[in-house]
Amino acid sequence: MKPIQVGLMGLGTVGSGVFHVLQRNQEEIKRRAGRGIELAVVSRRDVAQARAIVGDQAQIVADAREIIANPQIDIVVELIGGTGIAKTLVMEAIAAGKHVVTANKALIATHGAEVFAAAHAKGVMVGFEAAVAGGIPIIKALREGLTANRIEWIAGIINGTTNFILSEMRDKGLDFATVLKEAQRLGYAEADPTFDIEGVDAAHKATIMSAIAFGVPVQFDKAHVEGITKLQATDIKYAEQLGYRIKLLGITKRREQGIELRVHPTLVPAKRLIANVEGAMNAVVVQGDAVGTTLYYGKGAGSEPTASAVVADLVDVTRLHTADPDHRVPHLAFQPDAMADTPILPISQVVTSFYLRLRVADEAGVLSKITTILAEHDISIDAVLQRESAEGERSTDLIILTHDTVEGRMRDAQARMQALSSVLAPIVSIRKEDLA
Amino acid sequence: MKPIQVGLMGLGTVGSGVFHVLQRNQEEIKRRAGRGIELAVVSRRDVAQARAIVGDQAQIVADAREIIANPQIDIVVELIGGTGIAKTLVMEAIAAGKHVVTANKALIATHGAEVFAAAHAKGVMVGFEAAVAGGIPIIKALREGLTANRIEWIAGIINGTTNFILSEMRDKGLDFATVLKEAQRLGYAEADPTFDIEGVDAAHKATIMSAIAFGVPVQFDKAHVEGITKLQATDIKYAEQLGYRIKLLGITKRREQGIELRVHPTLVPAKRLIANVEGAMNAVVVQGDAVGTTLYYGKGAGSEPTASAVVADLVDVTRLHTADPDHRVPHLAFQPDAMADTPILPISQVVTSFYLRLRVADEAGVLSKITTILAEHDISIDAVLQRESAEGERSTDLIILTHDTVEGRMRDAQARMQALSSVLAPIVSIRKEDLA
Repeated sequence: MKPIQVGLMGLGTVGSGVFHVLQRNQEEIKRRAGRGIELAVVSRRDVAQARAIVGDQAQIVADAREIIANPQIDIVVELIGGTGIAKTLVMEAIAAGKHVVTANKALIATHGAEVFAAAHAKGVMVGFEAAVAGGIPIIKALREGLTANRIEWIAGIINGTTNFILSEMRDKGLDFATVLKEAQRLGYAEADPTFDIEGVDAAHKATIMSAIAFGVPVQFDKAHVEGITKLQATDIKYAEQLGYRIKLLGITKRREQGIELRVHPTLVPAKRLIANVEGAMNAVVVQGDAVGTTLYYGKGAGSEPTASAVVADLVDVTRLHTADPDHRVPHLAFQPDAMADTPILPISQVVTSFYLRLRVADEAGVLSKITTILAEHDISIDAVLQRESAEGERSTDLIILTHDTVEGRMRDAQARMQALSSVLAPIVSIRKEDLA
Repeated sequence: MKPIQVGLMGLGTVGSGVFHVLQRNQEEIKRRAGRGIELAVVSRRDVAQARAIVGDQAQIVADAREIIANPQIDIVVELIGGTGIAKTLVMEAIAAGKHVVTANKALIATHGAEVFAAAHAKGVMVGFEAAVAGGIPIIKALREGLTANRIEWIAGIINGTTNFILSEMRDKGLDFATVLKEAQRLGYAEADPTFDIEGVDAAHKATIMSAIAFGVPVQFDKAHVEGITKLQATDIKYAEQLGYRIKLLGITKRREQGIELRVHPTLVPAKRLIANVEGAMNAVVVQGDAVGTTLYYGKGAGSEPTASAVVADLVDVTRLHTADPDHRVPHLAFQPDAMADTPILPISQVVTSFYLRLRVADEAGVLSKITTILAEHDISIDAVLQRESAEGERSTDLIILTHDTVEGRMRDAQARMQALSSVLAPIVSIRKEDLA
């Protein structure tokens, strides 16, 4: 049988990885897929640069639309990224009856509903395993491997840049700005790292996992997003003393009133496996009612790890494209006519425990005032760490770990604590999750 | 659409889990599968006991063959276990044109070739996600999630009983026999624990993963199998001092000359994530050439975790049974006509590093004699730990960590060291893997 014909739009880092993996492992991939997978055409504005990568192994076009217009092409791979031209091209490819494979998390998280509706109407597949956690087959695990379960929550280290920065801050006791520069020098962070360090990239991925886990539409605009730019080395150190690590987690959780969807720095017990995921690695914990806790770990970015996910989607499409569209795996795990409209809860209604650091005057009665305020807000205390003030110091750090509480209540309590004259600096508060 | 009809043979621990999960999550499962999944008939010799579990929610038969003969049944779930009557029934179910889902690792590891050939000829699917690592979707990850990769090796903690025992031995410094009794009391080990503690169960699972990873037939009889019964608390302690944990690993590895397939206690660097998998939990590390290192973690046994995998297979069959058989996922990841006949290497040709413990006379020149023997066999040394002998003692423990070597060579060297008059007791040797 003639190999299935693939057109690749955007021959950058991941695109080159896809080319190399398909070349190197073509024999093995064919033995698995039952049919060869041929990268027939690639598009890149700079044709000479594309030539330097693929040589004469594929046709090269400067205009991606030539791929869509090519009747020989069965599957279009979109690796341009972003929600501008990439979205237009994906929609056009679907309209032209092509299957689509993409690594574009922004596109899926913000326009997934439109993309999947169009694909459903046309009877084509859109694969996006590469959009979440790079080479880790987490979309497949959620969408197919855990279908027996009522998913309770997902918590993931799904941005390698920030995990690398946090690992370095902890290891070396350095502050954020210093480590960020180092990460940029090493290529772990981009020149403009905003999307990573502000949590946007992680929020895109969390949004996609949330939709698949709970059968709701993707709705990135409802996600609560906080990055790691304000995190201080001091708090990483105190957390460690209390038996915790601080990780930037993407979390989505089923609650009675709705779904939590949030990205923020989080204290995690140091003994949890996910707390020990270091450097640029990713890991996702999924809690299901039947299976209990499962964890998936691997490289979340990079040329060939991401290509691994893209090519797995190509094999899936090759294996399944002749199946009638109603009997394929639904894009968001649930059948399109069986999606729920469960609301995403505002952050004020989220339930977590907290780490609080207060710079307080070293005088009698401070602890009592603070604990009274917490008690009045019905927030119970799990642990207190009060550092003895050094000789000559007139203020000290007071660390409090709370039990679970509603975020809105904590904000009220925090405002009242902040107003105390013996609280000398802005209170630092970081959410904490037990993940058990 | 009428729900797909399932008949379940063997309503024990896992069978009850399947019943409960399908009942509890039926709405959610239907939203995913696009069609209800109905457990219509269950078989168990003791009908009254079955009644106590399923009530009037399913028809109960004493004879499993009634399920096979029932034209209403689309999928047969086999949870009887073993390779006797279970095999006969699975083959009869396939012959009757039923799809089969099984948790039977012994059956797949020893008779997989026959089972899959029959299923292929009949155009039915045989799902066996539950046969390896319980609720962890590792078969799906290997067979579909990592299809882009040339798999290099797999190493897994795939037997919860032995991992529980090893964790307890390390935590509490107890010996094997004591912990085994405790494990039996707590229900982590069976009354007859032979299959678990001798490594047979892990070898079944490693055999299945090996076939899927490398596209070779399942061939359990070629696996090298060692359990944990001879492991001493002393070695766990020395390993810890050297920065290692001892785990019972199922390992399969691609080498130029063939495939390694083995189960044995293994030293693993304590900093590896898999070294920190404690208690009855399972974890599998898969190394692919594109994706790099990935890890999958979860409960490897138990009623509902195993049911999670069984039901996921039921959803897969429900989603895919109308697809033409040539465009489904092949049972062993590779197309039946594209399997390789790469040989499984004998243990003497396996390459690992070693932990050696020698009880030696506390006299001059011993270390030199031993290191000379190793050098003569071209085995290089990574680390040496010589305990100072206690007051009045005339012998001491000498611990040696080697670099990689061929097992046969190590056996020759070991025989020569054992023959030294200054080596006072049988040498303990345990394989070591870096897993990086």
